[in-house]
Amino acid sequence: MRTLRAAESVRRLCWTWRAHGDPIGFVPTMGALHSGHRALLRRARKETRRVAASIFVNPLQFGPGEDYDRYPRPFASDVRILKEEGVELLYLPRAERLYPEEFQTRVSVTGIGKVLEGAARPGHFDGVATVVAKLLATVVPDRLYLGQKDAQQATLLRRMVADLDLGVRVVVCPTVREPDGLAVSSRNRYLTPPERDWAPALYRTLSEAADRIRSGETVSPEKAAAWMRRRLARGPGRLEYAAAVDPRDFGPPKRGRPVVLAVAYRLPSARLIDNVVVKTGGRDR
Amino acid sequence: MRTLRAAESVRRLCWTWRAHGDPIGFVPTMGALHSGHRALLRRARKETRRVAASIFVNPLQFGPGEDYDRYPRPFASDVRILKEEGVELLYLPRAERLYPEEFQTRVSVTGIGKVLEGAARPGHFDGVATVVAKLLATVVPDRLYLGQKDAQQATLLRRMVADLDLGVRVVVCPTVREPDGLAVSSRNRYLTPPERDWAPALYRTLSEAADRIRSGETVSPEKAAAWMRRRLARGPGRLEYAAAVDPRDFGPPKRGRPVVLAVAYRLPSARLIDNVVVKTGGRDR
Repeated sequence: MRTLRAAESVRRLCWTWRAHGDPIGFVPTMGALHSGHRALLRRARKETRRVAASIFVNPLQFGPGEDYDRYPRPFASDVRILKEEGVELLYLPRAERLYPEEFQTRVSVTGIGKVLEGAARPGHFDGVATVVAKLLATVVPDRLYLGQKDAQQATLLRRMVADLDLGVRVVVCPTVREPDGLAVSSRNRYLTPPERDWAPALYRTLSEAADRIRSGETVSPEKAAAWMRRRLARGPGRLEYAAAVDPRDFGPPKRGRPVVLAVAYRLPSARLIDNVVVKTGGRDR
Repeated sequence: MRTLRAAESVRRLCWTWRAHGDPIGFVPTMGALHSGHRALLRRARKETRRVAASIFVNPLQFGPGEDYDRYPRPFASDVRILKEEGVELLYLPRAERLYPEEFQTRVSVTGIGKVLEGAARPGHFDGVATVVAKLLATVVPDRLYLGQKDAQQATLLRRMVADLDLGVRVVVCPTVREPDGLAVSSRNRYLTPPERDWAPALYRTLSEAADRIRSGETVSPEKAAAWMRRRLARGPGRLEYAAAVDPRDFGPPKRGRPVVLAVAYRLPSARLIDNVVVKTGGRDR
């Protein structure tokens, strides 16, 4: 595996690959790699000839008071995982090179970027869209691999890639879960044992709400979201949102279309998000 | 010359060129081509193996009440000029393909984009940055050719290209002028004969202000700008701004650095902009 720090070096290597007709699969990460990242890397390896990954804890997507400083950076184990998964190129940019003092460009996705996570974390999605635009311009991949765990991010980046004519296919891979249902996340390691015990309640709630929609017990996605809000009001932390949205634009659910049920929940030690997609589409919707 | 309308077709051709090691020079235009564009195309032809141009009157960069609808679109003569200048590829996108209904991404350059033209035309530079980001992602040129006439636009796009790691060299070519000094512009054709007679006053004023700085008669760029404002207050239209700024960031002039003197002037039939660069840098500045 080659580890490169300068955008110019990455660009040179990746253009050579592309010139040889080798499709590139790209998995951007903030490190602290886990089985969710492994799933993306395996999918990339299966579908493309060259697999590139990046590790970059992107300051632009963290708000003041968020966990930028304490975000886990277990570099040695990350490198081991990337090698195990057959990654050929690790792009490891330096923050001061990606964002020099005179930096002043932002990429924003206006509609999708403003609701749910966008409302809860102002500036977050501008930071995500901007850094991913930069990484894609450097790595010039054929395919970009993202996780369904960050459903809104995936939808937003798919929109950005289409809107900016980046010519990259966005592949969204299913959420990987612990045996008890908790979505795998780098931030799970922040949880205290009692918080960890409670955390699967999020997925249980999402799954039950989805079942209610599927079974027709709760007729509308909005009512299922309200049910989740009542249910999660009793937990040990604070529910930031529980919502039902259209997976394509994160706007209101539309009759006959799939629905994303999404939650963000703040425990004392970590903020957790999760979601499930409900494929409605019978006569009623 | 090949004329292509679909981004995918342009991308395919340009990637083939790049894979063959042929550097691409790119001249984005809104059509209504004139000798200023010819200068860009010639420079591109001299410096790169393949010259691509685009014609697209970009709705995103026009404000309400601006001249989007009446902007000149002399397509046949544009094509003739492009062919004369050895352009190999004309990218001619359709607005409804570049901006489908679900489009919602914006590229913004915060500092440079907010002053002078950015303040006079809200949203203008977001529209410019967004469309140029799209065009660059499609044409993947080695070099982007821009005119000094639109100095702030050139500075802004240079910033965007660096900030988004686009790996494109930005080449800014000198303003082409009519014999009487008026900067060549597609919008000059809007001018009535009396307005056309008056219009060279802009460049005369800029040149005299520059001389005052060079000669030391007017010590500071800010005073030279104030002198321009007094001088242009007497014209047949309305001065929107006359300012002295640093060419690198369009912020306040800095001691020992070049200065851009820039004006925007609204005549009844057309809004004109122009600028000159003063290379200060003696002991005083």
